[in-house]
Amino acid sequence: MYRMSMLTFLLDGSEGLNQIRCMELALVHDLAESLVGDITPFCGVSKDEKRAMEFKAMEDICKLIEPRGKRIMELFEEYEHAQSPESRFVKDLDRLDMVMQAFEYEKRDNCLLKHQEFFDSTEGKFNHPFVKKLVNEIYEQRQLLAKAKGATPPPAIEVPDMSATPKNIANGHSSS
Amino acid sequence: MYRMSMLTFLLDGSEGLNQIRCMELALVHDLAESLVGDITPFCGVSKDEKRAMEFKAMEDICKLIEPRGKRIMELFEEYEHAQSPESRFVKDLDRLDMVMQAFEYEKRDNCLLKHQEFFDSTEGKFNHPFVKKLVNEIYEQRQLLAKAKGATPPPAIEVPDMSATPKNIANGHSSS
Repeated sequence: MYRMSMLTFLLDGSEGLNQIRCMELALVHDLAESLVGDITPFCGVSKDEKRAMEFKAMEDICKLIEPRGKRIMELFEEYEHAQSPESRFVKDLDRLDMVMQAFEYEKRDNCLLKHQEFFDSTEGKFNHPFVKKLVNEIYEQRQLLAKAKGATPPPAIEVPDMSATPKNIANGHSSS
Repeated sequence: MYRMSMLTFLLDGSEGLNQIRCMELALVHDLAESLVGDITPFCGVSKDEKRAMEFKAMEDICKLIEPRGKRIMELFEEYEHAQSPESRFVKDLDRLDMVMQAFEYEKRDNCLLKHQEFFDSTEGKFNHPFVKKLVNEIYEQRQLLAKAKGATPPPAIEVPDMSATPKNIANGHSSS
């Protein structure tokens, strides 16, 4: 969340986004993980269940710091409901952050192309031109480095699709 | 820096501080450490040398992201020169963050009172009532826990005073 909030400093106003709003959303968007942990597609938790757990965690956190918790909850809801351009931009930053981190791990651990699943699961999901440009730069750097080092991709990892919801679980908040 | 920026969400406007400004200063204030590392009083580097190294690092970082680097440099200078109420408040948050982290380590590693030097080196340096209140709460929790566990303080560690500057080193920026 720190890196994402720092990335918002690169906005110069020409993107039609409120930079401060993006910074706040970036800081808050994953706060629930401090209680529920990072629930990945490999955890066997459906998207609806994950959402319900995260909303509950945010409610618990925000209750502790009332009345200021209200502001943090508003930001979290704005991010989750993806209704503002800023929230959609920060969602893009979240995917960018994942790709950047995967590439950093590949370089640090000398295992280029190993974390391909992070690139596969985010491919084609970037929307904002500002983020697309940064992602394409990472793609290029990664391919150049892999070529130079003669790296070959490992067998593909199948990422479970957790969007299918077997049970009708209330998420504690309407999505409207 | 993440925790410090999150702490600014607790401001409610009654403190006479611009919360957004505090958030930005908290995010930027230690960015130089990404290049020069965390220079502590035990590193044998004078305060002036440390300052010069950090300004140089910030210049290098900000050059990479011109024209947006200018904004980050302005925030860093505001923090370093401590001329605004927000920059002094964020300096307080920096000390609070150190004390919070020391206490977290003591609890995690089951070594209560062991990191006393962080409490000694910041004692009496907190200025803002908002931060003072939080620090006092940590002091109380720490003493209660230490008493309950029968912890005794380890021998005191002498922290070198690096404010004395043997050499006249230019810091690259006037302090006015």
